[in-house]
Amino acid sequence: MADRQVLCVGLVCLDIISEVERFPAEDSDTRCVSQRWQRGGNASNSCTVLSLLGAPCAFMGSLAPGPVADFIVGDFSRRQVDISGVVWRDGETPCACCVVCPASGSRTVVLSDTNLPDVTDDDFSKLDLSRFMWIHWEGRNADEQAKMIQRVMLYNSTLPRQQRITISVEIEKTRELLYQLFPLGDVVFVSKDVAVTFGFHSADAAVRGLYHRVKEGAVLICAWAEKGADAMGPDGVVVHSDAFPPAALVDTLGAGDTFNAAVIYTLSHGGSLQDALTFGCQVAGRKCGVHGYDGIVEK
Amino acid sequence: MADRQVLCVGLVCLDIISEVERFPAEDSDTRCVSQRWQRGGNASNSCTVLSLLGAPCAFMGSLAPGPVADFIVGDFSRRQVDISGVVWRDGETPCACCVVCPASGSRTVVLSDTNLPDVTDDDFSKLDLSRFMWIHWEGRNADEQAKMIQRVMLYNSTLPRQQRITISVEIEKTRELLYQLFPLGDVVFVSKDVAVTFGFHSADAAVRGLYHRVKEGAVLICAWAEKGADAMGPDGVVVHSDAFPPAALVDTLGAGDTFNAAVIYTLSHGGSLQDALTFGCQVAGRKCGVHGYDGIVEK
Repeated sequence: MADRQVLCVGLVCLDIISEVERFPAEDSDTRCVSQRWQRGGNASNSCTVLSLLGAPCAFMGSLAPGPVADFIVGDFSRRQVDISGVVWRDGETPCACCVVCPASGSRTVVLSDTNLPDVTDDDFSKLDLSRFMWIHWEGRNADEQAKMIQRVMLYNSTLPRQQRITISVEIEKTRELLYQLFPLGDVVFVSKDVAVTFGFHSADAAVRGLYHRVKEGAVLICAWAEKGADAMGPDGVVVHSDAFPPAALVDTLGAGDTFNAAVIYTLSHGGSLQDALTFGCQVAGRKCGVHGYDGIVEK
Repeated sequence: MADRQVLCVGLVCLDIISEVERFPAEDSDTRCVSQRWQRGGNASNSCTVLSLLGAPCAFMGSLAPGPVADFIVGDFSRRQVDISGVVWRDGETPCACCVVCPASGSRTVVLSDTNLPDVTDDDFSKLDLSRFMWIHWEGRNADEQAKMIQRVMLYNSTLPRQQRITISVEIEKTRELLYQLFPLGDVVFVSKDVAVTFGFHSADAAVRGLYHRVKEGAVLICAWAEKGADAMGPDGVVVHSDAFPPAALVDTLGAGDTFNAAVIYTLSHGGSLQDALTFGCQVAGRKCGVHGYDGIVEK
């Protein structure tokens, strides 16, 4: 059982990040200080971190054949993420051009939303679920994702507890449609954005105030940037970890995805909720001190 | 002789072109109208246009193996540009993020110069010059380019006039180093940017004022965006063409490279300087009315 995978279902895209000394004026030609290509998307980023932590993991999402997908496939491979569950579709893989200007602290993003359809329950039905110990959904096409989760619940109901798949969901965007995922996860990650939309002004208030939305026995987790993260399980006790800010903030892109991955890693290895939060904040903090993901795991 | 090639020496890069309704404000998130990948770089673009016009042509520049180069090689092949002279090096192929805004007619370029070394005179020395009728240099590593040009001059000196290679240079960037190319071309393209840097405020003033820098018998050409283009040859007469703006400005990226290619095409087929300027402005104008290069040549 030790080698069953963690599967993350959600978005993968290409982030092209150009660092400039000054934000370019319209119609000008600027030479950037540096440029890097990075595989992006929440579920895709969490896979990177899980793999760096040493968890066998897999990604499921949509890709369209072409040079963007070639880069993404190469990067997944480099990170040893299993992408046998990727759904190949006609269309274009999403790509974001990001201009980062450290001098002014700005990050300007031009995103191409290519309308590449997300994976459906029908795609998901083709997976051999016995490969997975944990499945994490980045909330997107929630109607379909709810069907996938119900499929896993049905599968779990036929198995002894130790062989069941743990179900986690991330509710990051403030979209009504996504809120149907609250009662479906064994572990539910809710974002600061969503918590604020519901009228909560701290992670502690958010997990207390939103806990009635999750199912019996579930864990609700809310990270709050530099304030750390709080979580509540079925015992009704709120646990907390402070953030672990790096000496210098270098790159916060994907910090939330890093937190989620480190929490999933800890819980899937039998760690306590407190251990998971603390480790999540530690690894996310290290991530903010480096470009990309290399070096976020202490050897 | 009819099938000798036009060789363009210079940059090839990947242009990732995001079309937006409005140029993004710093630190904003914009969703673009469309996004496309295009082979870019001045010399590379001019090859595309020469090929579309029906001239056998070749590109010489540096590429580094990887997904960007795969895309570029595929596109050169689609356009039937000979890239047997490409120099493969370790490193990264340059990539430019371009924001095109049809509403204002602007194209804003953030180029990552990856320090991939330009082709050297040593690389150039390996070419069989008898394949070429015309060699065009996009001014970049001018010290090396000057050596290449002297090599061609020496080659020419051994041949009857009809077999000689015509030498053209483009001085687009306002870099002191590039100005050594003025006296080296039979045909010299100088940009509006460079002309303005020298204190000239029209194409007419620029060709008159900079003509003393070119060699005896040479032609100096200066395009001035929507004002058209002017040129002066050894007879001291300034010829002019108005611009031919399209019904709707769609994409001005590469318009200058298109102009250069159409001028080279005309002159290499024995057309007059006036014909060349007029055709250059026509094709460049058509280019501004379409995305990319398909459809710039009337069938």
